[in-house]
Amino acid sequence: MLRSSARLLRTTGALRGPKGGKSFSSEVLPVDHSLPNPSWNEDMRLLFDQFMKKSEDGSWKRLPSYKCNLTERIEDVKIFFPDAKLLKEQMSQAQLFPRSLGEGVGFEYVMFHNHVEDRTVCIFQGGPHLQGVPGFLHGGAIATMIDSTLGMCAVLTGGIAMTANLNINFRRPIPLCSVVVINCQLDRVEGRKLFVSCNIRSMDEKTLYSEATSTFVKLDPKKKIDIRASGAFYTNLQ
Amino acid sequence: MLRSSARLLRTTGALRGPKGGKSFSSEVLPVDHSLPNPSWNEDMRLLFDQFMKKSEDGSWKRLPSYKCNLTERIEDVKIFFPDAKLLKEQMSQAQLFPRSLGEGVGFEYVMFHNHVEDRTVCIFQGGPHLQGVPGFLHGGAIATMIDSTLGMCAVLTGGIAMTANLNINFRRPIPLCSVVVINCQLDRVEGRKLFVSCNIRSMDEKTLYSEATSTFVKLDPKKKIDIRASGAFYTNLQ
Repeated sequence: MLRSSARLLRTTGALRGPKGGKSFSSEVLPVDHSLPNPSWNEDMRLLFDQFMKKSEDGSWKRLPSYKCNLTERIEDVKIFFPDAKLLKEQMSQAQLFPRSLGEGVGFEYVMFHNHVEDRTVCIFQGGPHLQGVPGFLHGGAIATMIDSTLGMCAVLTGGIAMTANLNINFRRPIPLCSVVVINCQLDRVEGRKLFVSCNIRSMDEKTLYSEATSTFVKLDPKKKIDIRASGAFYTNLQ
Repeated sequence: MLRSSARLLRTTGALRGPKGGKSFSSEVLPVDHSLPNPSWNEDMRLLFDQFMKKSEDGSWKRLPSYKCNLTERIEDVKIFFPDAKLLKEQMSQAQLFPRSLGEGVGFEYVMFHNHVEDRTVCIFQGGPHLQGVPGFLHGGAIATMIDSTLGMCAVLTGGIAMTANLNINFRRPIPLCSVVVINCQLDRVEGRKLFVSCNIRSMDEKTLYSEATSTFVKLDPKKKIDIRASGAFYTNLQ
């Protein structure tokens, strides 16, 4: 689906985080859901700590994530979809899908991006409300995290883009409440097309659960996103 | 992902519906979420009524759907995954992913199956908690409904099966809270492989939102599921 500036801002929650908190409709300080919470198990915390350590030299960067309610950001969308009917009542209830379930029962995840290698890693713990066959994650829940991580990788490396294709090979079912690692990379760029791929592996990397490829199409090649300059990275999308 | 007997039972909720109510851990009568509720908009109700009318001659059949909690059905899964670690505490919290969000804010849908044409239709209204880019459904939410409908079509026409591949082409973003129709069909069977495809269109069929193909692999070709014999359909999977 669409990976626009608004999408990126919503996903990372940058404009609505502590630095841009005044744009939140609520007075409550927004929660960054990419930080540890009591529902994270030992494996999730261990991987989080490992990537936080990798981030110390600046090669990796943790991506904040908020359950944004973008009632005031509708104008951003209209740039790409001038005929979109965005109803105020519906928009006021809107929540980012992967953050819409309660703490611990749905998608617990944190993403890190490496701007040198054009890679995005997602550490993901799938809760009990993501069940497909008893004891295992629903294919749609896996697709959701794949779509989210591939989209983030595409946007952060290639700019504002829209998913044209998502192709997933399921190798093994993922046990409910286990922790897996989604490794995404930008494979190549051909004109306005961005080719991104990923795999999902167990924490010890021995088990391959899924593989996916995706094609994104840039919406505006001039709007290059540079994660290295965090200020410009967020503001030049407005 | 896996489309097993347990998956089917969970999805349709057959064993946990009013006829098999005693296997529910709760004493509360289970809610069939494929029936209209106050959150359904006019379009959703209109399409539901149209398909209910088509079902009068028996060619189409509405598929019931429950937020099953399969704590007692773990043994079913162990047939296919004897080494699965199904923790009692986690399983007691488990919910079917597409039914895990609150009424009206998540996935509102009803499926109908035509056993003569090997087709499954899903009428789907995506709520405000399924948001991707502001005003539109998240790609993962679309993939979830595609996966669910393709899986149902494969199981009902070909028997117990597991998804090997899911390939989605996104043509246009789907507006939040709109109603779309997912049309699935079994294209062909080659040995143990089931090839299923679908498209997502607007209510008036004029707008094509997405197209998808999927390959399923039968787990046990002998266990043919016959939707025409509703009793046997549910019980011969046990």
